[in-house]
Amino acid sequence: MRQKNISSAVIARLPRYFRYLEELKEEGVERVSSSRLSEMMHVTASQIRQDLNQFGGFGQQGYGYNVAQLHKEIGRILDLEREHSLIIIGCGNLGKALANYGNFRLRGFRILGLFDVKKELEGTVIAGAPVYMIETMESFLEEHPVDIAVIAIPKQEALKLVEPLTRAGIKAVWNFSHTDLPFPEGITVQNVHLSESLMVLSYRMREHELYSECHPDESL
Amino acid sequence: MRQKNISSAVIARLPRYFRYLEELKEEGVERVSSSRLSEMMHVTASQIRQDLNQFGGFGQQGYGYNVAQLHKEIGRILDLEREHSLIIIGCGNLGKALANYGNFRLRGFRILGLFDVKKELEGTVIAGAPVYMIETMESFLEEHPVDIAVIAIPKQEALKLVEPLTRAGIKAVWNFSHTDLPFPEGITVQNVHLSESLMVLSYRMREHELYSECHPDESL
Repeated sequence: MRQKNISSAVIARLPRYFRYLEELKEEGVERVSSSRLSEMMHVTASQIRQDLNQFGGFGQQGYGYNVAQLHKEIGRILDLEREHSLIIIGCGNLGKALANYGNFRLRGFRILGLFDVKKELEGTVIAGAPVYMIETMESFLEEHPVDIAVIAIPKQEALKLVEPLTRAGIKAVWNFSHTDLPFPEGITVQNVHLSESLMVLSYRMREHELYSECHPDESL
Repeated sequence: MRQKNISSAVIARLPRYFRYLEELKEEGVERVSSSRLSEMMHVTASQIRQDLNQFGGFGQQGYGYNVAQLHKEIGRILDLEREHSLIIIGCGNLGKALANYGNFRLRGFRILGLFDVKKELEGTVIAGAPVYMIETMESFLEEHPVDIAVIAIPKQEALKLVEPLTRAGIKAVWNFSHTDLPFPEGITVQNVHLSESLMVLSYRMREHELYSECHPDESL
């Protein structure tokens, strides 16, 4: 049964558990203790037990977690058992990088097509998916229901897509444009703001430096 | 004066404030109220006041915030006034997308070079920066001190870079490889795990659907 009260902080951590459990599974490991997971993931063992208990938990004192079972359960919570269809808007370097990332396909995210404005790309194929002209997007979406639109174009162009994508009944948007897009609330929007990530890196770097200056004898 | 006790949740939100304030500044807006910022950013006005108060705050009851001053102050906290040097490792689509993202340069992140294994790329120029062969990276770093290494190559190759980059005294790593890299604690690592972001999107999509199924009369 689906637990509906998993906190969003735990949800944000689940993909990382999923990734580590997948590696263990591939290595043929059957059971893993919270302390082993803790070592691998650099998270305290008690944090791990707390997180995994939130959805029933499969740990057994002294026996650890069943890797395959926990992996499957987390995949189910993240809804990775279902196939998701997606389109990528923008065939620049970023759009191509996303299309070529093979893991997406393994996780059931199927690329139905890519869209761009560049005439010379029409009819070409990127990572097995055809490239269409952006002006045909709306009619394409009428014929092919799509779950997720991946937006990999600049801000001003991205803003123009909000209306047509909303009209087409898209369910979710993975937004790489450097702006927040005003989709209505019923549409799930996941932003990846790369410049924000770099700014946080910059802050954390400086913090590290200040700390070392004040504690010259400690190695961080 | 630098406030050292800004919470990490606030830090994570600062780049977004910075981005909105920058837009306002470009539009020539001089003052902005917390309620106007709240509308723009879809965050409550009290959250905004609380966040901005943490580092002195420049709000004045009834007058709002001085846009330029607040923008400058947040930039200073994020350490964006200083120039950062960086190298990009991996000239695939992702590496190229990052190199071409002009905003980084505007924010003082200067690309000294890109590194790859492909012989045919040697000596070419991407976004104004030269491409070198990966085997020359260590000697390059001896001659050119670099703050940040951007890692845009697959997991197995990325793991091999941990030792040489650590030896070279790199300060920070912006990691796009699909794994956690075991750098020592003194090096700041900022991970961008795209597949994790997509899994969270998948979860949130399903949550939305479940909500609509249970509340068919409400528009979300």
